[in-house]
Amino acid sequence: MFFEICDNEVDIVIAALKPDITTFLEGWRPIFSRFHLIIIKDPDLEADLEIPTGFDHQLYTKSDMEKIIGSSPINFSGHSCRYFGYLISTKKYIISIDDDCLPVKDVRGNLINAIEQHMTNLKTPATPFYFNTLYDPFQKGSDFVRGYPFSLRCGVECVISSGLWLNFADYDAPTQAVKPHERNSRYVDAVITVPLRAMMPVSGINFGFRREVVGPALLPALHLKTTGKQRWEALEDIWSGLCAKVVCDHLKFGVKTGLPYVWRNASGNAWESLKRDWEGVKLVEEIVPFFQSVKLPKTMIIAEDCVLQIATLVRERLGPVDQVFMLAADAMEEWVKLWKTFESERN
Amino acid sequence: MFFEICDNEVDIVIAALKPDITTFLEGWRPIFSRFHLIIIKDPDLEADLEIPTGFDHQLYTKSDMEKIIGSSPINFSGHSCRYFGYLISTKKYIISIDDDCLPVKDVRGNLINAIEQHMTNLKTPATPFYFNTLYDPFQKGSDFVRGYPFSLRCGVECVISSGLWLNFADYDAPTQAVKPHERNSRYVDAVITVPLRAMMPVSGINFGFRREVVGPALLPALHLKTTGKQRWEALEDIWSGLCAKVVCDHLKFGVKTGLPYVWRNASGNAWESLKRDWEGVKLVEEIVPFFQSVKLPKTMIIAEDCVLQIATLVRERLGPVDQVFMLAADAMEEWVKLWKTFESERN
Repeated sequence: MFFEICDNEVDIVIAALKPDITTFLEGWRPIFSRFHLIIIKDPDLEADLEIPTGFDHQLYTKSDMEKIIGSSPINFSGHSCRYFGYLISTKKYIISIDDDCLPVKDVRGNLINAIEQHMTNLKTPATPFYFNTLYDPFQKGSDFVRGYPFSLRCGVECVISSGLWLNFADYDAPTQAVKPHERNSRYVDAVITVPLRAMMPVSGINFGFRREVVGPALLPALHLKTTGKQRWEALEDIWSGLCAKVVCDHLKFGVKTGLPYVWRNASGNAWESLKRDWEGVKLVEEIVPFFQSVKLPKTMIIAEDCVLQIATLVRERLGPVDQVFMLAADAMEEWVKLWKTFESERN
Repeated sequence: MFFEICDNEVDIVIAALKPDITTFLEGWRPIFSRFHLIIIKDPDLEADLEIPTGFDHQLYTKSDMEKIIGSSPINFSGHSCRYFGYLISTKKYIISIDDDCLPVKDVRGNLINAIEQHMTNLKTPATPFYFNTLYDPFQKGSDFVRGYPFSLRCGVECVISSGLWLNFADYDAPTQAVKPHERNSRYVDAVITVPLRAMMPVSGINFGFRREVVGPALLPALHLKTTGKQRWEALEDIWSGLCAKVVCDHLKFGVKTGLPYVWRNASGNAWESLKRDWEGVKLVEEIVPFFQSVKLPKTMIIAEDCVLQIATLVRERLGPVDQVFMLAADAMEEWVKLWKTFESERN
């Protein structure tokens, strides 16, 4: 299925965690050049960013953040800087690609267009209410398996497209430490709607979404004091994805995972991460059952209200477990406040 | 991951719907020859079956059915004849492959061993309680994505492995009629645990399961009067799969779908099927919400009891919609009775 993508309906948000993003941008040039880029420099990064010419882009740094959001307690450091881009975008869709990813090539050596695939995922319906064994029925060459009720075939709007990585797989530090040489070479040619009520950890590293609809639920809320700059230490991505999935399930929107792949380079030292107190592993055990148990009132029909309600539940149910959850609840409320301010300025 | 398969723990059940299964068996010879085959001849088929020599097999025909189960009202005609094989097997696992399927070849022309893949699916745990975006973590080269709770990584026993088809896709008659020339050429290199509470239609055509555990829930119950011999007309497969999924969810067993693929040849005329009253399409609209709503009491801890309870609910909730559901409920009870008789004879 081919969808015309209007250049002005998409912002590509790039979290720049290192000063030289030339290799990254040159690698993506054929795909990115027609779109507007929002580049967010990690506020902890001191050196200037090197950005090659020829890209329609806006760069935001720590001082812009201070100017724009003042004294907000929200933490945009490290991987979380992408959320600042989500906040200031005015487009219908956002695609987020991190600066250590490159496009994947097909067997003929042609670049696979990850943006196009994210847009196909987002512009075709999702089918969360019944599992299609033939994968996403709206991808080219697929359809609904026999036994799929016709009444469910219109599906619902897909608002999240979570892509995967080749080469460096999305493991946590313990798994990475156990399998230091394992590389992901399995290209699974599929897109799947994650079923209703099935929770999963998404990754913001290769990720597309419908901004106004689900943006309020994609938020930097859960930060550990011991968090470093490694991908696997960033719990806020997991928290944010679970929050968004609960909201999508409640509002009857769809979430897809699978294609597109990006090529991710190995980075970080898993052993170094393990030397720190690996608090995250324990917290995930609390976080997942919590999000699985969240039920939202039917009266809540926008993501902003759902997030505020989830924040209340976090304080109630997870607060007693660890202080970090109280701070997460505060950050969720703060995020919704910021989001609403930006929305009202746009209108 | 490699698992040693004991030849004597697997029965391959073959539903023979046409007299000449030579091409089929020769195609599978390198894979099937070490296993015991249970060949069930469609009771409506009059001509003798041609079975090449060199296979350790038992053949069952209409007269065997009459001898063994007497005057049971269960309908074993057409695709349903495979269920007779399920009943008389004494092995731990059953793999069912229909006579119009051939093994798929890899890029080097080597046969892909579908039996081995089914057994890998069944002998490694399933993970129905949380979605792993990296697909089945127990397949070679995969693992759990970061953010997957360690407490859920042991998974649960997988008791169903539902495979897919290349070439002829598993469409219903209307879809097949609309896309007569579409062929499935997308080899999706993945196995997925279908999440808890997500319902899906399975296909018994390339299918493996743990016999004693889930066999009682795989049953020929829903037959339409207008049903012909075409695959897409056979509702009992859909009914049976939904029944088994509800039972697996309740008993905390897992269901996987995806690999292995088999090559299925095109067959049947979708237009001819559409000329008959295509009652099935309407019934699926009733069947799916029914199975989605089924809740079983915690006291039920074996599949036999779950099926009897579902039969009661079918009579109550679907009975008033169509008489065919009353007959399905009767057949479910009859099946459990037969199953218990066979089980007690085995012990």
